Amino acid sequence: MKVGFIGLGRMGQAMAARVQGGGHELVVYNRTRAKCADLEKAGAKVAASMAEACKGREAVISMVTDDKALLDVVTEGVVPGLPKGAIHVAMGTHSVAVLREIGALHDKAGQVLVAAPVLGRPEAAAAGQVGVVAGGPKDAVAKLAPVFALIGRRTFDAGVKPEGASAVKLANNMVLGCAIEAMAEGFSLIRKYGVEPATFFDVMTDGLFAAPAYKVYGNIIAKELYHQAGFTTALGLKDANLMLAAALAANVPLPSLNVYRDRLIDAVAHGEAELDWSVIARVQARAAGID
Amino acid sequence: MKVGFIGLGRMGQAMAARVQGGGHELVVYNRTRAKCADLEKAGAKVAASMAEACKGREAVISMVTDDKALLDVVTEGVVPGLPKGAIHVAMGTHSVAVLREIGALHDKAGQVLVAAPVLGRPEAAAAGQVGVVAGGPKDAVAKLAPVFALIGRRTFDAGVKPEGASAVKLANNMVLGCAIEAMAEGFSLIRKYGVEPATFFDVMTDGLFAAPAYKVYGNIIAKELYHQAGFTTALGLKDANLMLAAALAANVPLPSLNVYRDRLIDAVAHGEAELDWSVIARVQARAAGID
Amino acid sequence: MKVGFIGLGRMGQAMAARVQGGGHELVVYNRTRAKCADLEKAGAKVAASMAEACKGREAVISMVTDDKALLDVVTEGVVPGLPKGAIHVAMGTHSVAVLREIGALHDKAGQVLVAAPVLGRPEAAAAGQVGVVAGGPKDAVAKLAPVFALIGRRTFDAGVKPEGASAVKLANNMVLGCAIEAMAEGFSLIRKYGVEPATFFDVMTDGLFAAPAYKVYGNIIAKELYHQAGFTTALGLKDANLMLAAALAANVPLPSLNVYRDRLIDAVAHGEAELDWSVIARVQARAAGID
Amino acid sequence: MKVGFIGLGRMGQAMAARVQGGGHELVVYNRTRAKCADLEKAGAKVAASMAEACKGREAVISMVTDDKALLDVVTEGVVPGLPKGAIHVAMGTHSVAVLREIGALHDKAGQVLVAAPVLGRPEAAAAGQVGVVAGGPKDAVAKLAPVFALIGRRTFDAGVKPEGASAVKLANNMVLGCAIEAMAEGFSLIRKYGVEPATFFDVMTDGLFAAPAYKVYGNIIAKELYHQAGFTTALGLKDANLMLAAALAANVPLPSLNVYRDRLIDAVAHGEAELDWSVIARVQARAAGID
Repeated sequence: MKVGFIGLGRMGQAMAARVQGGGHELVVYNRTRAKCADLEKAGAKVAASMAEACKGREAVISMVTDDKALLDVVTEGVVPGLPKGAIHVAMGTHSVAVLREIGALHDKAGQVLVAAPVLGRPEAAAAGQVGVVAGGPKDAVAKLAPVFALIGRRTFDAGVKPEGASAVKLANNMVLGCAIEAMAEGFSLIRKYGVEPATFFDVMTDGLFAAPAYKVYGNIIAKELYHQAGFTTALGLKDANLMLAAALAANVPLPSLNVYRDRLIDAVAHGEAELDWSVIARVQARAAGID
Repeated sequence: MKVGFIGLGRMGQAMAARVQGGGHELVVYNRTRAKCADLEKAGAKVAASMAEACKGREAVISMVTDDKALLDVVTEGVVPGLPKGAIHVAMGTHSVAVLREIGALHDKAGQVLVAAPVLGRPEAAAAGQVGVVAGGPKDAVAKLAPVFALIGRRTFDAGVKPEGASAVKLANNMVLGCAIEAMAEGFSLIRKYGVEPATFFDVMTDGLFAAPAYKVYGNIIAKELYHQAGFTTALGLKDANLMLAAALAANVPLPSLNVYRDRLIDAVAHGEAELDWSVIARVQARAAGID
Repeated sequence: MKVGFIGLGRMGQAMAARVQGGGHELVVYNRTRAKCADLEKAGAKVAASMAEACKGREAVISMVTDDKALLDVVTEGVVPGLPKGAIHVAMGTHSVAVLREIGALHDKAGQVLVAAPVLGRPEAAAAGQVGVVAGGPKDAVAKLAPVFALIGRRTFDAGVKPEGASAVKLANNMVLGCAIEAMAEGFSLIRKYGVEPATFFDVMTDGLFAAPAYKVYGNIIAKELYHQAGFTTALGLKDANLMLAAALAANVPLPSLNVYRDRLIDAVAHGEAELDWSVIARVQARAAGID
Repeated sequence: MKVGFIGLGRMGQAMAARVQGGGHELVVYNRTRAKCADLEKAGAKVAASMAEACKGREAVISMVTDDKALLDVVTEGVVPGLPKGAIHVAMGTHSVAVLREIGALHDKAGQVLVAAPVLGRPEAAAAGQVGVVAGGPKDAVAKLAPVFALIGRRTFDAGVKPEGASAVKLANNMVLGCAIEAMAEGFSLIRKYGVEPATFFDVMTDGLFAAPAYKVYGNIIAKELYHQAGFTTALGLKDANLMLAAALAANVPLPSLNVYRDRLIDAVAHGEAELDWSVIARVQARAAGID
């Protein structure tokens, strides 16, 4: 397939390399050209502009950091450059609102929008082991199956609306945020009763919660490793705001989200924006008068 | 070891059978004598009173449903019957307050209290596969190790205070309640965006949340199987109240607990007390105007 | 009317003096006899026991600090001492549960229970200016009207169940707690924007909130006068727990109560139990990283 | 003073009429010209464009419904039309973010921004009885004093930053929203105990809460008059979102706001967007299983 790829951050590079490795004819673009080097070496063509990366492509994938960047990609690149009938696959984590907005722009330009945010880290992407949550017209999603199969280990069907895929990704992240807050509350309770955090970690991860979410974040909390940020408080809050906006647009009250979002805000107010977002366990400990 | 066992509900019978099977000299007591039948057949002696079940024992295990029953066991049975220096092992889920109260009574009577609530269902107990969370004097807990090894697959050290074990069990259950509420919020969000619940279930349990808590309760929620109650809303609320009391006694604010506890109350107010406690997902759906 | 009065704290003394001043034949009792002195001088008879304070009375008023004390009054004094058909007027702030419990005891003894908690401070009581919230059988409440008219400026009809009066008093206090928390949040927000607290106080109390709740507590918060405790955090938390229990007994979720109750717990966890309960504004400021 | 006035909704007309009545030389503009009629009759000049309404003015007042409209006013009218050194007085309720944004635009154009949202309804504005919360450079606010004195009964000093005035107005509205939610919770509690809503209304408004907020909204709730919307749920939610944004920009967690905002969302999800926002009391009643 003739594929364009815009946005070569760590995640984007890993994903584009998978597509390239799968034998597709790839054109890439990144504002900082240096990040195209490895892909160029591997055989990808480097476009001079976003529009050029879209020209003649059957599909163009965008993997950019936020809604503003996505809007730029669409107005500067995809709308003017991508052929009618071709597909724009937005694989970043975006707001429901922006997906609806660019969906309307693509509609007008005769192009198709598929949203396909991924679940997993750059290392997983490099190994083709992320999860892909795909939302959009059935035939477009079907056509992209071989590309998704290179990038991810599994594709989840989020229905025919692109924003549905965004809702799934955000809801999944929300469940994670709530799990971290719940652990935070649990750890603060048992600490007040003189129990070692390691014991509570073992109890959780040995039984009901023997899953990455609890193993990774339970360990950070138990050992207070907040300075090794995998995902920062600032990013967590940005994400939480996307969830809140998605919930508002669909009229869904989310009390647990509010709780952990407030903890993130408290953390930011205490200068902990760049620590790992599980530092909300420290916020909870503070509230309980620990330390 | 000479062991007494008081309280032969489903869980108690399964646990007592393990102890008996391990070659210990067992005396059992239950208010409804009929429930002693299987154990008697297996060789256990049946006591005529709680005090008799404690007489001459090195340790007596209690497995009763609530704090009131535990207080009865202690005042009618353990304090008058158990020898000085012997151990009372409270294995039910009890409040921090009652453990402190009976701890004082045992102290006065020269007896030792260990709290050792278990994690898991009767089937797991019958197979010796539950988790045991033990809190109490180190030597007493050490002495009980062979008994715990029969009942459970693993013993977790909750420190030297009996109520610490209760705090761990309650905190673990709280993390579970929060996980259910978080899923409830997530499911309601994605449903509003037209996504199939099964997709969200798959996304969660395939990745970050590949653990029993999410597989069991996510499945009930996705399929709305609330009438097959494994653990009822009423029991969930009773449990949540124990957590709230433990938190109050230790001055710990628990905002996430408050959220899911309010959902349980809402469910009870809607006649859903005897449904599975994950029916809070229906409460959340109602709040979002779904159905 | 022949009236007994049990419980002569500051509030009780002020109320009993009003009854005595109204020409009723009064017998008083207090565990610390010294507190009866002023009333004795004014003409009241002092009883040697709670039961004696109830003997031959048409009504006995209790004004004690908590549920435990009320249960003692009822079992030691009212049930054995008060004539059949006579009325026990519980004027303290009590739980719904204890009122139901003593209601059953009085029923069995052929006595009548009216709950009539008061709204206002000792100074208001001394001037007969409190509010009286009365719940109980209509004829009993009617019979007490002249007594209530001496104690209070106005009697509010809480229906035929004693616990209804308790619910009203607790709900009113809850609205107050929520108002304090709301102000706390408002003050923290405007402080972050560099606005003087006095300005926000003026805006609130000049307009929509020109009422004692906001004037008294807004002033304490704006000037941070938490050390002049009118009502302590510890008492606020005790009260909040009564509300929570009343809500649980009636299956009512109360999310705002949970929020301000958690703030009270946070305050207690920070050694602020004996400060004015509006110190939750400091808790809120801490959460926002102020100071 | 030479004053321009842009935005003649009900509130704007009332305010502009006060300014005109005070003898100032007034030029007005409104997109729908018909709304200028009364003011023109009273002697005001009607401008053909926003820029014209700013030309040669010492101050131009804007009173528009939302941030988008304000941005239009600034870019189309104030920046191109208003003389250097002159003042733009934004008197609508706006987000902190947009005030910062237009502040920067005015700065660049050598103009001065004052934010001065008003507290009160159109009738109060017509009588010059609203409150004015003014934020901006001291000398600019001082210069506007005579104008504010015509519009309002009192001017509150919100400091030297325009967004401070917005924060005060939003915080005041937030305290109101929280008061309504608190009443909602109180009413649901006492109803469950068989108490008449009117009693609870009397208790609140007779004592601690003898203020407009409680009298107006307590009455609507007690009598369930939600169809006579003074301020709709939809507007309440729009307002709540402004508060949330102001809090986020300043890193302030606001748990009580989250509670009542979620109630508003629940109401909207139940088709109650156009009812009075105190319909959150019905949402709370629903959650408690009432009706």
